[in-house]
Amino acid sequence: MSHNTFGHLFRVTTWGESHGAAIGCVVDGCPPGLSLDEAFVQGFLDKRRPGTSRFVTQRREPDTVKILSGVFEDDRTDGPVTTGTPISMMIENVDQRSKDYSEIRDRYRPGHADYAYDAKYGVRDYRGGGRSSARETASRVAAGAVARRVLGDRIEIRGAVVQIGPHMIDPERWDWDETGNNPFWCPDAETATRWESFLDETRKAGSSAGAIVEVHASGVPAGWGAPVYGKLDAELSGALMSINAAKGVEIGAGFAAASLSGEDNADEMRAGNEEGPRFLSNNNGGVAGGISTGQDVVARIAIKPTSSILTPVQSVTREGEETDVSTKGRHDPCVGIRAVPVAEAMLACVLADAKLRHRGQTGM
Amino acid sequence: MSHNTFGHLFRVTTWGESHGAAIGCVVDGCPPGLSLDEAFVQGFLDKRRPGTSRFVTQRREPDTVKILSGVFEDDRTDGPVTTGTPISMMIENVDQRSKDYSEIRDRYRPGHADYAYDAKYGVRDYRGGGRSSARETASRVAAGAVARRVLGDRIEIRGAVVQIGPHMIDPERWDWDETGNNPFWCPDAETATRWESFLDETRKAGSSAGAIVEVHASGVPAGWGAPVYGKLDAELSGALMSINAAKGVEIGAGFAAASLSGEDNADEMRAGNEEGPRFLSNNNGGVAGGISTGQDVVARIAIKPTSSILTPVQSVTREGEETDVSTKGRHDPCVGIRAVPVAEAMLACVLADAKLRHRGQTGM
Amino acid sequence: MSHNTFGHLFRVTTWGESHGAAIGCVVDGCPPGLSLDEAFVQGFLDKRRPGTSRFVTQRREPDTVKILSGVFEDDRTDGPVTTGTPISMMIENVDQRSKDYSEIRDRYRPGHADYAYDAKYGVRDYRGGGRSSARETASRVAAGAVARRVLGDRIEIRGAVVQIGPHMIDPERWDWDETGNNPFWCPDAETATRWESFLDETRKAGSSAGAIVEVHASGVPAGWGAPVYGKLDAELSGALMSINAAKGVEIGAGFAAASLSGEDNADEMRAGNEEGPRFLSNNNGGVAGGISTGQDVVARIAIKPTSSILTPVQSVTREGEETDVSTKGRHDPCVGIRAVPVAEAMLACVLADAKLRHRGQTGM
Amino acid sequence: MSHNTFGHLFRVTTWGESHGAAIGCVVDGCPPGLSLDEAFVQGFLDKRRPGTSRFVTQRREPDTVKILSGVFEDDRTDGPVTTGTPISMMIENVDQRSKDYSEIRDRYRPGHADYAYDAKYGVRDYRGGGRSSARETASRVAAGAVARRVLGDRIEIRGAVVQIGPHMIDPERWDWDETGNNPFWCPDAETATRWESFLDETRKAGSSAGAIVEVHASGVPAGWGAPVYGKLDAELSGALMSINAAKGVEIGAGFAAASLSGEDNADEMRAGNEEGPRFLSNNNGGVAGGISTGQDVVARIAIKPTSSILTPVQSVTREGEETDVSTKGRHDPCVGIRAVPVAEAMLACVLADAKLRHRGQTGM
Repeated sequence: MSHNTFGHLFRVTTWGESHGAAIGCVVDGCPPGLSLDEAFVQGFLDKRRPGTSRFVTQRREPDTVKILSGVFEDDRTDGPVTTGTPISMMIENVDQRSKDYSEIRDRYRPGHADYAYDAKYGVRDYRGGGRSSARETASRVAAGAVARRVLGDRIEIRGAVVQIGPHMIDPERWDWDETGNNPFWCPDAETATRWESFLDETRKAGSSAGAIVEVHASGVPAGWGAPVYGKLDAELSGALMSINAAKGVEIGAGFAAASLSGEDNADEMRAGNEEGPRFLSNNNGGVAGGISTGQDVVARIAIKPTSSILTPVQSVTREGEETDVSTKGRHDPCVGIRAVPVAEAMLACVLADAKLRHRGQTGM
Repeated sequence: MSHNTFGHLFRVTTWGESHGAAIGCVVDGCPPGLSLDEAFVQGFLDKRRPGTSRFVTQRREPDTVKILSGVFEDDRTDGPVTTGTPISMMIENVDQRSKDYSEIRDRYRPGHADYAYDAKYGVRDYRGGGRSSARETASRVAAGAVARRVLGDRIEIRGAVVQIGPHMIDPERWDWDETGNNPFWCPDAETATRWESFLDETRKAGSSAGAIVEVHASGVPAGWGAPVYGKLDAELSGALMSINAAKGVEIGAGFAAASLSGEDNADEMRAGNEEGPRFLSNNNGGVAGGISTGQDVVARIAIKPTSSILTPVQSVTREGEETDVSTKGRHDPCVGIRAVPVAEAMLACVLADAKLRHRGQTGM
Repeated sequence: MSHNTFGHLFRVTTWGESHGAAIGCVVDGCPPGLSLDEAFVQGFLDKRRPGTSRFVTQRREPDTVKILSGVFEDDRTDGPVTTGTPISMMIENVDQRSKDYSEIRDRYRPGHADYAYDAKYGVRDYRGGGRSSARETASRVAAGAVARRVLGDRIEIRGAVVQIGPHMIDPERWDWDETGNNPFWCPDAETATRWESFLDETRKAGSSAGAIVEVHASGVPAGWGAPVYGKLDAELSGALMSINAAKGVEIGAGFAAASLSGEDNADEMRAGNEEGPRFLSNNNGGVAGGISTGQDVVARIAIKPTSSILTPVQSVTREGEETDVSTKGRHDPCVGIRAVPVAEAMLACVLADAKLRHRGQTGM
Repeated sequence: MSHNTFGHLFRVTTWGESHGAAIGCVVDGCPPGLSLDEAFVQGFLDKRRPGTSRFVTQRREPDTVKILSGVFEDDRTDGPVTTGTPISMMIENVDQRSKDYSEIRDRYRPGHADYAYDAKYGVRDYRGGGRSSARETASRVAAGAVARRVLGDRIEIRGAVVQIGPHMIDPERWDWDETGNNPFWCPDAETATRWESFLDETRKAGSSAGAIVEVHASGVPAGWGAPVYGKLDAELSGALMSINAAKGVEIGAGFAAASLSGEDNADEMRAGNEEGPRFLSNNNGGVAGGISTGQDVVARIAIKPTSSILTPVQSVTREGEETDVSTKGRHDPCVGIRAVPVAEAMLACVLADAKLRHRGQTGM
């Protein structure tokens, strides 16, 4: 992880600003011979695409991906396959309305990266947040699609929103199939209804709401992760915290583990099968000592409420004078929703990199 | 971050097992000309040292550090100074009692890394957890001392325990000076008393307790951090989650931010001084868009209860047969306590690396 | 240096195949506020462009670069400037004639990477050599243009061809201005004439010729380079050897140094000015102990003769059957010529990275 | 490669100065389960050890290695084996005579790194060259021993000196067995005799001589190397050029390739066996397109004459005043000789890293 490259053997470099000509990524180190075409990648991008419901930004971006390199097809291959060389993917920006942003050229939006970018670089593309915009996460989703090919079909990666504002789901009602039935990736139908009215109110009030996203990877074999500074959970935490608006990360029981006794927290083991023992609980979230245990890898991220709100908030100008800011551009009332496919993508990238590194070191 | 090396320009590589001859680290990329001697490093190691109260492990390790390279002194320097070449530091292990561990050679301790290490490597030094032991964190503390020299005196790094088991401190009573007055790094004297009896009970019951640790860095200038995959908060999360027994990380308001409205979460700004604006709150924990804002950098880590407990728990042997495990070795009833100097060290290392990288890219 | 990324703080990731839709690169870690537009980059690409004389490939590629991200212009900036975020540059391939390559789909061209790529990846884009084509070097040249901005005007980087086939220049006649007066970047007008007839013969014979390229950087301050595995000359050697067809690298006196006595090889020093001592010779090529000395950095690369020749050579098919191969595509009779701007670019990239890393570690 | 760490998956970090307490290295990323003990490592160190003949430095260093971590032995393992965790190795310095160096505290030895280190760091351990001393290469040799275990017995790595001063061997008389029969690693008995008298004269004259070292790796399978910036020959060039006093690197035919025609340089192929085709020559030195071809990997390094000579040479003091320097410490009249085991070690490290990375990406 350095600047704009993520990963070690499976490496993703992203580029592009919210209101530039295009955004994209280069996926390097991908194993050769994997089936990969634009339709496959597009499927994941469509999950993150703006404008799909009234609860997400109304910016109209088809987010059509082009694969510019790294795949090859002839009559000897079964469709396009990866060649092991860098996979360059590009998504053109088509619905930029830069004039929406002329107001923030000279003033800092609280909660946004505006001031920090200026402090760091002294110059910035302020249109739509420039590089700090969550638009960059489309590139992550494209890379995540490639990562899923690296992981193969035995590993399933899924995500859900488990809290919006103060409203948590009821874990007892968790049904993965429900996540496709509502615009929130909510696994609990009852809570989805509640969120609908809550977010309608939030939106009408010109406010915004935070959320908690949970991601699972099942089918991960025991042994992935590179202690002690490339621990699977450490790299996953870094990856998830790098998502826009993330403020917290938990693995397994997470913060709740602090209140447990050693007995209650222990993931006891019983005789299993040739793939490993059977665990009686998963407080560790599928990782022990920084290495996968064969259980589901489970993580949660706290996403803060969108900083772009209609309600005026106090701020300063670039010259340090006091002013008020209210944001009239098109924004997600709850960015946590569209964070689901992004968090899935980051989980996929971390696991793909861990797989290749583990295979490199141990040959397994 | 890769395997056992942490950082990019300020790089720390650690080595050593709990019951080997020694542990240590190599700190590479340190700026030249910084004052550094063993006494300075030792001061930090003494904060993490075992055996200082009945609430931490009774293993007797003086943790005496030797600096083997990378510093130089002659009549032209003002004491020993760094030379810009690798600083090798070593700590001998003196109180190994390997026989304590003969029992766990063939059985996996639930919650520990035993099974995962075997699954990954097929061979392991099981004595005291080997490489997965928290003993490795002494090397982090030594490296953190060097990092503090890189940061200089204007940046202050402090940590505290804010929760043990289910018992939180009262933030209203926070007093940094109190952290030195009790064996828990507790900033709230009243809560410290409560923890004392709680942990005595825990210890007598052969159980263990989790904790939440909070670390602060003040004096960090705006501009540090390397978006979008080297974001300051992302790297800090990875660093903190790599600490043994960590299961969650929060920056600023953390998970609580998910429940806030956009208005309440906004860190509003007012006219400040030449160092930047004045912020009316710090929900962002000193980081926006992955870049420091000039406010205090604030993070919290959830530490799970020590997995080594006297109470027998169900497990399996290396051959997959069912068995029970209870751990009789010397252990911390609450590892969260000794995690404080370790978390401080990781924060220092992340910031030192961010400082050098920022200076490299921007010249500032 | 890993896979397709070059550099540490100043990082270049390239992508694209000879006959794909496009090629390009992402330059990451660039300092903000540097003037950069497409015209500036294009100037360097035009030096490497094919089809400029009968001594280089006749493929018609305008090599027009587009900058897709990482620069910004408004009425506050003096033209487009870098923002410190990733600079994505793309060059479309327009003159692909893939049918030229149908013959080599199933047979390996000796001296080329055909067999090695198949052995590594099991699948490859054989059209024009795919990823192994020297077409990739256009991306390096684009990145090198950015690197020159990082280095600033005080550092001058120049290259020349000093040998083609067995014919060396006479160093006594070296005149940098001459390099622009002939199609060979030859600094010696007399030798240029000789090369002209030599290469005409070579070309008519359906053969090819090797070359030696020399690059200089003047104005490099003393102190750049990161011993002992990031030594300036070590990184430069790796960078230059990564250029297609390179088989040897020398720094300063290079292989000739092996025959010198210690006295003759010593670069003696005399009192200089505030920038450092005056050296009486430069056998070290501007680098001592892996660190720049303030003298000109001087390196030479041996470029083997183009492997694509009309004369049939013995080879095998993909299935291992014996066959002959002769290459009828459009090729450089002496690839060493177009290696000059590429070698300059790699030298610029190595120095830019060294500058940022040195500044990072030492603040200078 | 960054600062003092070499490699990506198989990573070596070295530390220590010529006249400090000790030197050493940490080898990280090593596969688990490999047989490794101190005796095995010592065998390679003994080849590099000073004081073995009158043609190398007379410093008396036993170079006894201690393995401090990363290996484990119990009754279940067949001797000590690697655990996959960092292998820390240390060699104590026992024959420092720092007073020899008091003279050079304030003056720069031409050809040495003295001035460059001061220019970079502003402070340096000048005793025996400090970090810039070739003493550091003992750590490389120790790491190289581990790398050989990673490569296994099918890969053989050997080196020889092929030129000392102006005197080349006769390649027709090459006999690997001869390298053990003379103090020069010379594969040609006749030339060894000639070198003996040449170096005696050199030594008596207070002068020094350069050399060319050649290293071979046989048994390397086709497919290793990571184009285009992690090419096998590019990484090997960087690795070899990082050796003290190296000024040139060649792969295969090297600089001679520049004079060849395309036909003469082509490594033609004939039908081989299941491991690949049979090549009729090896001008490519076992690498094409940056990937191994299955042929022997062959490289040569030019080593400049030792800069430490008795004959006074002109120089300046730290304050910029003119002075003369002659070096009276114990030095190698021809450092090229002891570079042989070092070059072998670097070749082994590069290949071990390439093996693990190739396995990581492709599973092969």
